[in-house]
Amino acid sequence: MNILEKIIAQKAGVKTVKVGDELTVKVDLAIAHDVTAPMAIKQFRSINVDKVFDKERVVFVMDHCVPCATVDSRQQQKYIKEFAQEFGTRLFDKSEGVIHQVISDEKLYKSGDLIVGADSHTCTAGAYGAIALGVGSTDLAAVMALGTIDMEVPVTHLIRIEGSLSKGVYAKDIILHVIGMFGTNGFTDRGVILSGSTILGLSDDEKMTISNMMIEMGAMIGYIDQSKEFDAKYIGKVSKETVILAEDIQPVAACPSSPDNIKVIENIEGVKINQAVIGSCTNGRISDMIIAAEVLKDRKVSENVNLVVCPASKKVLTEMEHQGLTKILRDAGAIVTNPGCGPCYGAHQGLLNHDDIAISTTNRNFPGRMGHKDAQIYLASPRVVAESAVQGHIVRPGTVIPLEV
Amino acid sequence: MNILEKIIAQKAGVKTVKVGDELTVKVDLAIAHDVTAPMAIKQFRSINVDKVFDKERVVFVMDHCVPCATVDSRQQQKYIKEFAQEFGTRLFDKSEGVIHQVISDEKLYKSGDLIVGADSHTCTAGAYGAIALGVGSTDLAAVMALGTIDMEVPVTHLIRIEGSLSKGVYAKDIILHVIGMFGTNGFTDRGVILSGSTILGLSDDEKMTISNMMIEMGAMIGYIDQSKEFDAKYIGKVSKETVILAEDIQPVAACPSSPDNIKVIENIEGVKINQAVIGSCTNGRISDMIIAAEVLKDRKVSENVNLVVCPASKKVLTEMEHQGLTKILRDAGAIVTNPGCGPCYGAHQGLLNHDDIAISTTNRNFPGRMGHKDAQIYLASPRVVAESAVQGHIVRPGTVIPLEV
Repeated sequence: MNILEKIIAQKAGVKTVKVGDELTVKVDLAIAHDVTAPMAIKQFRSINVDKVFDKERVVFVMDHCVPCATVDSRQQQKYIKEFAQEFGTRLFDKSEGVIHQVISDEKLYKSGDLIVGADSHTCTAGAYGAIALGVGSTDLAAVMALGTIDMEVPVTHLIRIEGSLSKGVYAKDIILHVIGMFGTNGFTDRGVILSGSTILGLSDDEKMTISNMMIEMGAMIGYIDQSKEFDAKYIGKVSKETVILAEDIQPVAACPSSPDNIKVIENIEGVKINQAVIGSCTNGRISDMIIAAEVLKDRKVSENVNLVVCPASKKVLTEMEHQGLTKILRDAGAIVTNPGCGPCYGAHQGLLNHDDIAISTTNRNFPGRMGHKDAQIYLASPRVVAESAVQGHIVRPGTVIPLEV
Repeated sequence: MNILEKIIAQKAGVKTVKVGDELTVKVDLAIAHDVTAPMAIKQFRSINVDKVFDKERVVFVMDHCVPCATVDSRQQQKYIKEFAQEFGTRLFDKSEGVIHQVISDEKLYKSGDLIVGADSHTCTAGAYGAIALGVGSTDLAAVMALGTIDMEVPVTHLIRIEGSLSKGVYAKDIILHVIGMFGTNGFTDRGVILSGSTILGLSDDEKMTISNMMIEMGAMIGYIDQSKEFDAKYIGKVSKETVILAEDIQPVAACPSSPDNIKVIENIEGVKINQAVIGSCTNGRISDMIIAAEVLKDRKVSENVNLVVCPASKKVLTEMEHQGLTKILRDAGAIVTNPGCGPCYGAHQGLLNHDDIAISTTNRNFPGRMGHKDAQIYLASPRVVAESAVQGHIVRPGTVIPLEV
């Protein structure tokens, strides 16, 4: 068995599993946010269960629209809060941050855990060695009641990335490069393990950037190898293996309007932008903010650009302030929002008009993702987004020389 | 002539004026924000003028919905930006704060200036001795073209507040007390001068809290006496004078759903709240934030309450961070937004549902002001709002003992 299968077997309480086995597995953590929780709760209430499987293991985080931008969102959040108070589940409703970051900051799971979340980017927890499955609200309702979920053991694909990254290449470029190779359906219903010296040498922040976007290739599981160095024995037998050389990865962007429409930055240099976004569960952590601040220190955001910076969590924002980054960013003309999803989901805090062109560190650029369906969104690293925000158009990294912060 | 008449005469280029005179006066500053500027610009464009009267004196500030919470608001803001760039007018579109605070922070006017703004709370500038008139967008369009406005010299009413305030009584209580006395139509189309030892002893921040809400009594002008002590000669002959003793002013709240529905706090103690707002052009300055932080330090916002803190400007927020207040507030569970109007206008950042009860430092509590028409809003001082946020219900000041910050 490979490491994913071992975890699944353990959670199913069986000795061995193989690809295609249908199993009922124990869930360590069930999560939902303000957009998905209401439907899950409605479904849960409809089955007349009088308690959740474990009130410490059912967690709601209000992140998509906090503070509420509409009366409807307020209504939904109160519905969630009533449930949380009635059933004693955990609730984060004071702008603690994006759900995936909050459960990590709060250490609500550990390596080897199985997480089920009513959000496609639940896979983010794969960075810490959790099997983290994104599901629909109805499935989550069942998990909330039973503490288990039925799953099929997936085919596992190993991606090894080996070697040193070139200057100006970041974790975001790695995952965009991989998405460019495999496409948005590349791993549908599959398990993916990422390993290799490049991956294993990344910081936790960087690993989260990568695991976060595994769902953009349809992966059921995006798991980052937790060994210190690449260890085929630890990982176990996988169905397929791909090796990528880090030196082949260049600074790239996902161009409108799909995360797999990957182009090398130098081929899109000069594209005028009028919004830039740094943040979200993809790239809203402290290391991302340091990169942004290094670029923006003593500089100004182009007058044609609105730069919205969305810290992924309260912990991140507190550290940003402690390091003086919020001031650097605001002095440059950035708008630093309260922790949360910001404009990534198109709910508030920076919606786009029909003729807007945005560059963003977030994870999706489908038509309408951040507002009007005709708005164009480029996805890139914080470095490229920050430099482009200064220049007013897309630039390759290194165009603006970073300053120490 | 009184001081208002003297300023009006000077701006009209005449030696004397008297009540009822219709005059064309010179405007020193014309301002509008993201809600009112689009209509003013549309009107301006329709009259085919090729320039504004003075591009340094036409100022747009995006404050009501920044970052944009809707595609429509983005559309409107881009319309304003295009105009500002084409006509070379001043534009603040990077969350610099609420228009009334921004023009003060940036010292875009001085005592004795005449300001016309497409916002009812333009009167805020009266704190610094400006005659500041709120007008509709169409009137503003004419001002943008001509640099003048037609006005009738108003009847002037002097309000003197004398003596020392009791403990727990703040500037907000003063103005709410006055509104309670005179009602929402108390000064319709009148000029009001505020003076007396109490008023003259206030800080600039506190004076702005008072001038800000003069429009809630319909006043055409809310002017705060700029002399060091009460000087009848400086003020000149007024039509009517009212003296209020500071000792008669108690901690109060404007109850649902009118700013003149004033009740003493102890009579409404115990009313449960689920939202609290500290901020806005009424009470979003550094001194307000210090009061809030003193109450919230090492404490927690009630689990039933969402506390939204909206700094009135970037300058305020920078100082808050410098003093460690943002951290204190966030650690207590407050959500600190980017500078701007926050939920005051009901555009975003904390809308209310039909059964919400809010306590807020803002200036209006009409039905629907912050979301659903059935939501109930109490207006009070930052002290009362902060303490109530901790307790989960309305409390008299002093219930929670402030700590040094």
